[in-house]
Amino acid sequence: MSTQPHVVIVGGGFGGLSAARALRKAPVRVTLVDRRNFHLFQPLLYQVATGQLSPANIAAPLRAVVSKQKNTRVLLADVVGIDANTRRVLFSDGTLDYDVLVLATGARHHYFGKPEWEQLAPGLKTIEDATEIRRRILTTFERAERETDPDRIRSLLTFVIVGGGATGVEMAGAVAELARHTLRNDFRNIDPRKARIILLEGTDRVLPGFHPKLSAKAEKALAQLGAAVRTHALVTDIQPGLVMVNLGPKGAQKTEKLDAHTVLWAAGVQGSSLGKSLAESAGGQTDRVGRVVVQPDLTVPGHPELFVIGDLASCSGPDGKPLPGVAPVAMQQGRYVAQLIQMRLKGRPMPPFVYKNKGNMATIGRARAVAEVGWLRLNGYLAWLAWLFIHLMYIVGFQNRLLVLMQWAWSYVTRGRSSRLITEREATR
Amino acid sequence: MSTQPHVVIVGGGFGGLSAARALRKAPVRVTLVDRRNFHLFQPLLYQVATGQLSPANIAAPLRAVVSKQKNTRVLLADVVGIDANTRRVLFSDGTLDYDVLVLATGARHHYFGKPEWEQLAPGLKTIEDATEIRRRILTTFERAERETDPDRIRSLLTFVIVGGGATGVEMAGAVAELARHTLRNDFRNIDPRKARIILLEGTDRVLPGFHPKLSAKAEKALAQLGAAVRTHALVTDIQPGLVMVNLGPKGAQKTEKLDAHTVLWAAGVQGSSLGKSLAESAGGQTDRVGRVVVQPDLTVPGHPELFVIGDLASCSGPDGKPLPGVAPVAMQQGRYVAQLIQMRLKGRPMPPFVYKNKGNMATIGRARAVAEVGWLRLNGYLAWLAWLFIHLMYIVGFQNRLLVLMQWAWSYVTRGRSSRLITEREATR
Repeated sequence: MSTQPHVVIVGGGFGGLSAARALRKAPVRVTLVDRRNFHLFQPLLYQVATGQLSPANIAAPLRAVVSKQKNTRVLLADVVGIDANTRRVLFSDGTLDYDVLVLATGARHHYFGKPEWEQLAPGLKTIEDATEIRRRILTTFERAERETDPDRIRSLLTFVIVGGGATGVEMAGAVAELARHTLRNDFRNIDPRKARIILLEGTDRVLPGFHPKLSAKAEKALAQLGAAVRTHALVTDIQPGLVMVNLGPKGAQKTEKLDAHTVLWAAGVQGSSLGKSLAESAGGQTDRVGRVVVQPDLTVPGHPELFVIGDLASCSGPDGKPLPGVAPVAMQQGRYVAQLIQMRLKGRPMPPFVYKNKGNMATIGRARAVAEVGWLRLNGYLAWLAWLFIHLMYIVGFQNRLLVLMQWAWSYVTRGRSSRLITEREATR
Repeated sequence: MSTQPHVVIVGGGFGGLSAARALRKAPVRVTLVDRRNFHLFQPLLYQVATGQLSPANIAAPLRAVVSKQKNTRVLLADVVGIDANTRRVLFSDGTLDYDVLVLATGARHHYFGKPEWEQLAPGLKTIEDATEIRRRILTTFERAERETDPDRIRSLLTFVIVGGGATGVEMAGAVAELARHTLRNDFRNIDPRKARIILLEGTDRVLPGFHPKLSAKAEKALAQLGAAVRTHALVTDIQPGLVMVNLGPKGAQKTEKLDAHTVLWAAGVQGSSLGKSLAESAGGQTDRVGRVVVQPDLTVPGHPELFVIGDLASCSGPDGKPLPGVAPVAMQQGRYVAQLIQMRLKGRPMPPFVYKNKGNMATIGRARAVAEVGWLRLNGYLAWLAWLFIHLMYIVGFQNRLLVLMQWAWSYVTRGRSSRLITEREATR
């Protein structure tokens, strides 16, 4: 038992959990370390933020997921650093030796050198982010209901979402549906349908990773829901109740001031802080957003025992383009590393990691989505069904799948959202 | 419209919401005021605290509940006082005039003059209480897993629940099931089945409101689940990791020291603080636990326009005994007041309020419960089924009913609990 190599995986997201599960029959001891006691299905976090799902529906207790995997233990701990020379993971209250380390701690928001924007424009990465954004959105309608000044009401009912990637598009669609359908009969002084939802995107179209035709479809679907898209939009300042934007293509820019009580951030991510600690300790490099540059086999140069996967890894595809920070990349990398570890134990070589892109998809609200799978491009109802089944398939836990499906079916029929709780930021009782 | 009397209901719990709904066709304007934006089904709060249900499953957004009730508006506001002379409800940021006031703000914990115990032994009244208790219970197992000192492990795996009423019994059963079944395979260093669950009750038996035979059945069921009951137990001190108890009937008492990392409070409640403000302003009286003494028609003496219902009201049954602080009392009082208001408008009299006791029930875990309905006493599987259907029936929202039923069915079959999230106490982002 103790002579088996010790594989430590830091991070129980898509990458780390895939690696752990793929090692279940390997002759190694696995320790899965995470700060949190659950795996989070981040792609549906926006539905928690807009009251459609409960946090537990998109979370699976890590211990339950690997409870039958005898070679694996789970450790709830806060990793503060890596010592690559002594092969040790450093906790705030101890250390853990490893033979092989898989670092999969993901990414966090990136405010382009303006960390002070974070309080004003929260991003969506954790359960607490989601319940805080839900609290802000719902509280805003409540405040508008009690407000008498028309300008204040207009500002309270204006929602700005910064960043037109999949997260921003899904968030804008969900907020628009919440305002226009779910809440339509709930207030007596304000008309929630008059809420303005503005999606700001820096490039010339939303969903820049998709085919331009699908970007156009997404923009149209957003418009039908009542969410306005502004492309070539660069945020220059955020103040309480205020967003300053440079609008228009280069050479023809004008500055606009948006009075908006609620601003949400979906614009950029950077590698988690452990990446830097690892790079310093192991003599590796990080890219400009703090991700660790890895070799084709996902190791850190000079450290064959050190893997970095998922959003924390800076890794290029065969076309030289960096791989996107999405779940399928992380999962494939996790399984690749697990396989490589097992092949090494058998003394056999492994080809470099190659990402198999199975497609992109984004949903824009009830029965509206865009998807591309190879040369196939879908939009509307069919794309939405595809999106629905693929997301259901990848949620961990059979019970969660049923619960999510039921709540989606319910929302589809009634346009209701049952998880509209304003919980307190601090449970001080 | 504006000539119709204005009925203000403070509190959206069982009492307040029942009153509001029963007034839906009355020729009055109704304003339902609450600090929170949802109605909470408190009887199932212990299932949120033990990871079986999500907060949203037992909460219904107040606005959604009354959205189709045209004569009713919802106001999210913090009521800080009542001015009975000018007939005004006082908010932290304004006032609201009323013609009729229904005060239904419920109860909070009562630590018998030891408010410092609250931090060490939290009670279960709000969603935040439930997620905080869930956090404490789950974190305790995590700490035990990383601990090496056997005494510390023993203390970490000891759970003391103070108070053997329905809440305490249900909590003790749920914690025992969590430890012995749900978590049994989840840890590698500790055996969660060795957790000690101790239920302390001051009188000679648990569930003192029930028939003694059912108390005995409940105690036996708890023992089978691995929860120990100590009767004649009086808590004399609580310190971090420590509970001091006086045990045994009068004259034969001995003091015991319980090393327990987790202590939960289910022992006593007192009327919410508004009761006192009302009594002072209206010249009424409060009883020794701060509940407002009301007349047989639930009004405050000298103020026919002032009603107090639910846990905040001190009201006796025909036998002279005070009515218990349970949901059926509050709901019947809410409907009674709504009817009385309508009869008054027609100039017709109403008989005094009479509580129709339809029975008591408490569940002790999977397929175990006790129930009494009139002369009929049930225990075991049948009582549990009865408990299950009655609770499902009274949860507000058809979707919530389905979601709860599905999660119960799931837990019943697998003994799993999906909502085992340790969320952060303060969502600092």
